Amino acid sequence: LTITLYDLAGAEEDRRFSPYCWRTRLALAHKDLAVDAVPWHFTDKDAIAFSGQGRVPVIVDDGEVVFDSWTIADYLDATYPDRPVLASPAERALAKFVSAWTDTVVQGGIARLIMADVWALLREKDQVYFRESREARFGTTLEAFCAGRDEKIAAFRQSLAPLRLTLKDQPYLGGISPNYADYIVFGAFQWARCTSKAQLLAEDDPVFAWRRRLLDAFDGLAGKALGYKV
Amino acid sequence: LTITLYDLAGAEEDRRFSPYCWRTRLALAHKDLAVDAVPWHFTDKDAIAFSGQGRVPVIVDDGEVVFDSWTIADYLDATYPDRPVLASPAERALAKFVSAWTDTVVQGGIARLIMADVWALLREKDQVYFRESREARFGTTLEAFCAGRDEKIAAFRQSLAPLRLTLKDQPYLGGISPNYADYIVFGAFQWARCTSKAQLLAEDDPVFAWRRRLLDAFDGLAGKALGYKV
Repeated sequence: LTITLYDLAGAEEDRRFSPYCWRTRLALAHKDLAVDAVPWHFTDKDAIAFSGQGRVPVIVDDGEVVFDSWTIADYLDATYPDRPVLASPAERALAKFVSAWTDTVVQGGIARLIMADVWALLREKDQVYFRESREARFGTTLEAFCAGRDEKIAAFRQSLAPLRLTLKDQPYLGGISPNYADYIVFGAFQWARCTSKAQLLAEDDPVFAWRRRLLDAFDGLAGKALGYKV
Repeated sequence: LTITLYDLAGAEEDRRFSPYCWRTRLALAHKDLAVDAVPWHFTDKDAIAFSGQGRVPVIVDDGEVVFDSWTIADYLDATYPDRPVLASPAERALAKFVSAWTDTVVQGGIARLIMADVWALLREKDQVYFRESREARFGTTLEAFCAGRDEKIAAFRQSLAPLRLTLKDQPYLGGISPNYADYIVFGAFQWARCTSKAQLLAEDDPVFAWRRRLLDAFDGLAGKALGYKV
């Protein structure tokens, strides 16, 4: 049975850029579950109204509706315990810390580099919604929010020090193979790669090599996605 | 059998303030192992020369010499597998990330707040060594390195956002009970508490409540240690 995923898309329907949807895409691949990733746009609220809320990822698995990327990962491990585990109970607590670090440091940092680029890739009606909602949240224009990118990239790279240090000694956050913590962090980089030409990582950074391994994982699922070769 | 721990001390021999020695103290308590924590000072290099290196923590367990707090935690789990586990193989990889975050963000941030306070609590000969080695490393005086503390505390508190977010949803990094990841982060706060009156945490911060739980753990082992009620 194929699981349906409502997956955030840009004006081009193949441009799939949500960091949270990427967490779910890789989680589904990790568990070797077939997926039909349906394009969904910011203003397509009606299309997922059946889930009782307005954000993606949403999955439908044999009639079962689950939303929120963390809840989906939990659901997949609970529902398919015989398939590769995303995060064992022991790992889940620490993966929560990785998730909190990603939400604040990594995605918080990347947002200030790419939000104007994201806007440029949306359908016109989504652009209106995105600009209004984000500018209200940030208290400034998208362009001002993303100003001075070259100077900010150095600070962003420095903020990755904990990830860099970890990946000097082991290939994945999960150890010798990736687990859900890796997909959480990777989703943030994939968000940037699918929307922006910004060179977030230096090529000699262990984080760059780790991202490459995940771009190549699952027959290049993430690496083949529409984006920029950065 | 009692394990001997060489434990960094100030001019007062009861002032034990090394963040790495605290990681080991709590690891030993977690595994319910008896310890004789011998005071050791920065310039007592001869006393631990038998370990083949010059830093603490060093433990001696029935003739077995182990140094480096991470290696000690591994040794304790491998040698005493029937006692409460510090970090299962699945948890170890993610605990490495917590350790890297602690070393860079938490301890890096605290250092700029308390290093001058640490200096003031050392024996005179250790003060000379500490000032020279740290000022060479920082490229400035201890006092300049720690200047502007009140302004820096706000930024430090903000840097704890990933920890704060995690502890809003679960009592410990380890989940419903602490594991070695908790002791890694806690050691940094204990380093500050044993040496400085700086109020690192607001009392309504979930991180404050988490620290309180760990100060109270193991019959108040850390809470009873010589330090400041901050």
